[in-house]
Amino acid sequence: FDYDGPSMKTEVPGFDIADMLVFLQNVGAVHFFCNYEESRGNYLVDADGNRMLDLYTQISSIPIGYNHPALLKVLSKPHNLSTFVNRPALGILPPENFPERLMETLVSVAPRGMSRVQTMACGSCSNENAFKSMFIWYKNKERGHNQPSQEEINSCMLNQGPGCPDLSILSFMGSFHGRTMGCLATTHSKSIHKLDVPSFDWPIAPFPKLRYPLEEFVRENSQEEARCLEEVEDLIVKWRQKGKTVAGIVTEPIQSEGGDNHASPDFFKKLRNIARKHGCAFHVDEVQTGCGPTGKFWAHEHWGLDDPADIVSFSKKMLTGGYFHKDEFMPYRIFNTWMGDPSKNIFLTEVLNVIKTERLLEEVSRSGKALLQGLYELQAQYPHLLSAARGVGTFCAINARDDATRDRLILKVRNKGIILGGCGEKSIRFRPALVFKEYHVHLFLNIFNDVLAEH
Amino acid sequence: FDYDGPSMKTEVPGFDIADMLVFLQNVGAVHFFCNYEESRGNYLVDADGNRMLDLYTQISSIPIGYNHPALLKVLSKPHNLSTFVNRPALGILPPENFPERLMETLVSVAPRGMSRVQTMACGSCSNENAFKSMFIWYKNKERGHNQPSQEEINSCMLNQGPGCPDLSILSFMGSFHGRTMGCLATTHSKSIHKLDVPSFDWPIAPFPKLRYPLEEFVRENSQEEARCLEEVEDLIVKWRQKGKTVAGIVTEPIQSEGGDNHASPDFFKKLRNIARKHGCAFHVDEVQTGCGPTGKFWAHEHWGLDDPADIVSFSKKMLTGGYFHKDEFMPYRIFNTWMGDPSKNIFLTEVLNVIKTERLLEEVSRSGKALLQGLYELQAQYPHLLSAARGVGTFCAINARDDATRDRLILKVRNKGIILGGCGEKSIRFRPALVFKEYHVHLFLNIFNDVLAEH
Ligand code: FES
Repeated sequence: FDYDGPSMKTEVPGFDIADMLVFLQNVGAVHFFCNYEESRGNYLVDADGNRMLDLYTQISSIPIGYNHPALLKVLSKPHNLSTFVNRPALGILPPENFPERLMETLVSVAPRGMSRVQTMACGSCSNENAFKSMFIWYKNKERGHNQPSQEEINSCMLNQGPGCPDLSILSFMGSFHGRTMGCLATTHSKSIHKLDVPSFDWPIAPFPKLRYPLEEFVRENSQEEARCLEEVEDLIVKWRQKGKTVAGIVTEPIQSEGGDNHASPDFFKKLRNIARKHGCAFHVDEVQTGCGPTGKFWAHEHWGLDDPADIVSFSKKMLTGGYFHKDEFMPYRIFNTWMGDPSKNIFLTEVLNVIKTERLLEEVSRSGKALLQGLYELQAQYPHLLSAARGVGTFCAINARDDATRDRLILKVRNKGIILGGCGEKSIRFRPALVFKEYHVHLFLNIFNDVLAEH
Repeated sequence: FDYDGPSMKTEVPGFDIADMLVFLQNVGAVHFFCNYEESRGNYLVDADGNRMLDLYTQISSIPIGYNHPALLKVLSKPHNLSTFVNRPALGILPPENFPERLMETLVSVAPRGMSRVQTMACGSCSNENAFKSMFIWYKNKERGHNQPSQEEINSCMLNQGPGCPDLSILSFMGSFHGRTMGCLATTHSKSIHKLDVPSFDWPIAPFPKLRYPLEEFVRENSQEEARCLEEVEDLIVKWRQKGKTVAGIVTEPIQSEGGDNHASPDFFKKLRNIARKHGCAFHVDEVQTGCGPTGKFWAHEHWGLDDPADIVSFSKKMLTGGYFHKDEFMPYRIFNTWMGDPSKNIFLTEVLNVIKTERLLEEVSRSGKALLQGLYELQAQYPHLLSAARGVGTFCAINARDDATRDRLILKVRNKGIILGGCGEKSIRFRPALVFKEYHVHLFLNIFNDVLAEH
């Protein structure tokens, strides 16, 4: 079903984007226009007919490639159509088959220890509502019951305490959890995301800055992780003293937008224990890492913990947003009009099916190994240009010398038919679909090598 | 295409909801399960085959009824299918036909004075990003340019000023603008929405508490409006003195969740002028009122202003979220993964077409008149039960004696085949689709009358 390789006809973009956009949004952000009808598998086709091998996949949000036949088939089944044209208010009037649909999709991939799932529509509302769940949980725990006082009821209407308490979420420098205002208070990847927007005085811990490959720097890295964990505990104590008690800790298993920053299973195990010790909820944000790209369905499975988290949020490749949670985070006051979109769950059914029947997690592990190996070789060959190759599964990254070099490399490979994305200060990130095979890896490595040699 | 009337087989819900929901979300909120395949036009069918005339339409989010043939046709056209199975990162890789698609949909219904539109995915991200636009706009205005200082860049990464400024949005008591944390700071309809969630110290003005019918209480009402406007100015001054300057004012044209509270065109004209005088942006939230239910496409058109707003946000019946804005609110730093969903824009094309060709705005005005007239008659007949009938178009409401009576009435009419919703403390709100005709009004009024007579 896939095309057999890139095919370039023009530079990309082939025409002036501004000409296409009257009345439109942020012209500056547009990379190029796409022909989604002609795109297939790992290949994205642009408006000029250029066909490119896609290792960025719409910011990591296309799970099984473009126009997968299994997804197209969904739309040919008459009984599915009403789900597309009648979007329900899912929280109050769910379709009769929705519980069943949830069982065969989200419930079937529930992370260990999670007994419930709440659907949402995107990564931001998933995290916003996960945060709210943690605040509500914390306050109920503090009260010893869930009956608010009259003073709480009155004061919250005015945005004031005690009804709107001065609780906080602890996040990490370099993290990204979304851009709505609650999420944004825990996002610290780029200043441009945060500038000019009012925020909350919440604690921000350093995320370990590790040396790669991890196997070679075990001792240094574990010292660095210890330093960060110590800081986490200090901040929890400090913010409690300030009267802004930490209700929850949120972290990505791999900091993605912030530059593909990894930490060891041991770090996360200790972090999880610190959360428990201080009575904070522990929220793992798998919006970018979830649904297979690390070779396990959830990236946090690599930690090997029995009780890895209280809340795990997801979106992107999962097509629907949402979060898994433990019983005690029951969302009695979590609500909005749509609460997700059942038409996305129909597609998710097929995606999970394809992942299983085509054994895509194994595929990802195999391709990922080849990709990382190739990156190691390239950085050995071009040490003045590349460093710090790292990754799990195909969720890989490598650093360029500086941001200008990174941006130039991305443009150059694009004109040779490869789509890459940047992240952090000077990293290139690899985010192919789960159908990215070993031969795609070699196709990419060859072209990347050519570009590096020319550079 | 519509059914010819309600048809009831069981009580609603016909079975125990909790049985259906294992692992599932908030069981308590579910009203009943629906058969969306069998639902048609103004009629929602439940899992037991009960067919009900729907005056609530999924919290006011179904524009032209269930399973409208024009929407089903979209899915039978092969060239549309790729839009459903390949959701793009719209901000960077839009489909080639997207500018055109925007022109024929959102641009064609742009409110007066608005030169740009930004798509989003739901009401909350629409408002969150509208707020962010206003903050960014305000800071750039204050700077005189858009080059932040190094201190701003550094401090914002830590959630601190000056990079994260202490700006505020002024909202009204009784308003609803969403439940993510930024939106929630401007939402003041029910305490249960806000309780236990940290918030911002932003100013909250009283919204006029008018007497209905408006024509009969012109003098009292205009005094009440003057009082509220005075308070708005006072709050703007006070919050500036506090160092939490008001960057924008947000209001609904009719407070919806808060109880269908109306204000006069004169009130909004003066409010808009106050915003201008104090250099605050003026944001009109049309998430619930937009797309025709008042008989005009946008409810704020009833004000008759040439320059009604700086920003107008929408969602629900519009199927996609987003906001219109003036040039100077260019969203250079507004971004997320999906930035909307082009598959919703395809449906919106058809919805706008149907609204035009079937002259649905005229239909709404006609049905609305009959509905309001009927409500006036019922409240005259049952003054101990009903009062304060009010509305524009079919966007109507009436008060019950108290909340218990309201809830009982809603359940009773439901078992006779009519779906209604509540809002505010003790109001019943009417939110039928735009295809709700005069004979549906009479059908409803007859059944409502029976229930009131029995009560
Ligand atoms: S905030 Fe998630 S869809 Fe709007």
